[in-house]
Amino acid sequence: MCTEQCLRHAAAHPVVSRRGALAGLAGLVAATAVPAPASAHASRVVRDLTHPFTTTFPTFADGEEARRGPYKSIETDGYYMQEWRIVEHTGTHVDAPNHFVTGGRAVTDLTPEELVLPAIVLSIRRRAAHNADAVLAVADIVAHERKWGRIPAGAAVLLHTGWDERAGSARRYRNPDGAGVMHFPGFSADACEWLLAERGIRCLGVDTLSLDPGRSEDYPVHFALLGADRYGIENLRGLDTLPAHGATLVVGVTPWEQGSGGPARVLGLSG
Amino acid sequence: MCTEQCLRHAAAHPVVSRRGALAGLAGLVAATAVPAPASAHASRVVRDLTHPFTTTFPTFADGEEARRGPYKSIETDGYYMQEWRIVEHTGTHVDAPNHFVTGGRAVTDLTPEELVLPAIVLSIRRRAAHNADAVLAVADIVAHERKWGRIPAGAAVLLHTGWDERAGSARRYRNPDGAGVMHFPGFSADACEWLLAERGIRCLGVDTLSLDPGRSEDYPVHFALLGADRYGIENLRGLDTLPAHGATLVVGVTPWEQGSGGPARVLGLSG
Repeated sequence: MCTEQCLRHAAAHPVVSRRGALAGLAGLVAATAVPAPASAHASRVVRDLTHPFTTTFPTFADGEEARRGPYKSIETDGYYMQEWRIVEHTGTHVDAPNHFVTGGRAVTDLTPEELVLPAIVLSIRRRAAHNADAVLAVADIVAHERKWGRIPAGAAVLLHTGWDERAGSARRYRNPDGAGVMHFPGFSADACEWLLAERGIRCLGVDTLSLDPGRSEDYPVHFALLGADRYGIENLRGLDTLPAHGATLVVGVTPWEQGSGGPARVLGLSG
Repeated sequence: MCTEQCLRHAAAHPVVSRRGALAGLAGLVAATAVPAPASAHASRVVRDLTHPFTTTFPTFADGEEARRGPYKSIETDGYYMQEWRIVEHTGTHVDAPNHFVTGGRAVTDLTPEELVLPAIVLSIRRRAAHNADAVLAVADIVAHERKWGRIPAGAAVLLHTGWDERAGSARRYRNPDGAGVMHFPGFSADACEWLLAERGIRCLGVDTLSLDPGRSEDYPVHFALLGADRYGIENLRGLDTLPAHGATLVVGVTPWEQGSGGPARVLGLSG
């Protein structure tokens, strides 16, 4: 945020004078003894379920990598900002219904209430560690409910596979075989359809590149979920830091115009 | 999210078969009688404080407008997604300390706890309706506290000016005079410094293009706030839908790599 006014001002006031002002402010702040967060919020635990949005994060397909570059610099312009080229399905991001469904809702059509949901975390990490093609089955959900109770209506069901730990390496995260077919865990179509029909879930999330397992050829989970006017979240991280039940998911997706989804900041609130 | 696998599949399975599958799913969903959100969340009010992120939203300076274009389409590719070119300070967005401060924290350095804050809303709308150069003064904060109680430490202080209602028109939102100097309301430097020093606030937010009033030439609020390692939010909307005290602000800013801030989904939770 700077106009020609700013540029004129920068020309008239060398950077050193701004630094001087800042030094004075730093003294002011140092003397202020910054207080802790308000007590009303002290007991709330906030978990970041979002990967940093970088130009090197693994993408589902080649060519989708984000690019960034300097747009203004403090040295030259008095302030710093970057510009980006992004494809909507990069990094931790939302899949809106219109991603797969003609006439489906865009990301701007998701209501605020749909972005704040009870979070349920199911884990297949142990199985996925030995079988990259592992999927969440209906039996897993039944076993989960026997232990933790019924999944509430309107929930976000989040699948922890442990794959987020591989995201530093595109090769390990995509995990292609010799024929180029990817292998990573995901939801089974049966589990997705059961959760829609029997539990009225609002959202599915996963810590891999896709709701469907990597080797899927026809994306039945995407078609079922988005076809049911629900939305998905991919490339989550740290799902094991949330309790299995009781947390609240906040899906901070930018309302990209006519967006098929897009980069989001996803937080888990508990405590 | 689609690979060559998807393209091969799309070639092998005409779109009509997908539509058939969707029609079947639509029947499934229609029969499901989608339940209401979980009761645990039924009493929570979620307010969207974010403008849709569009290519026509007014920018602080020319050339910063977002651009978008089709990247894949359902007709051709079996799925839809867009690509974007964005400058970080566009739409409803965060200003991180490094926007103005060399060596300041990037948006990725903000902690999750800093993104979930007690929200305090102060309004100068009535005054701003008659004076586009109106600013929040320390006396306004004192009067606010007399009515509503002390601003808690670690709060996000949000300034409602009513300017969000002008965002459909760049001319009215920027409101330049004959010399091109913009006129819109904002925080006074004194108010910002007082809130930092006396109330240990964490964040300032405003429903205009800038924390500083439009006619500012040297951005003292930016320098004070970001120089104190705090962050700002600009181009908020709907601040009058939040209570003056008691709501929680969730700042869903994408963690843009080395970002000087960037587009965010900002929600207010109350009730």
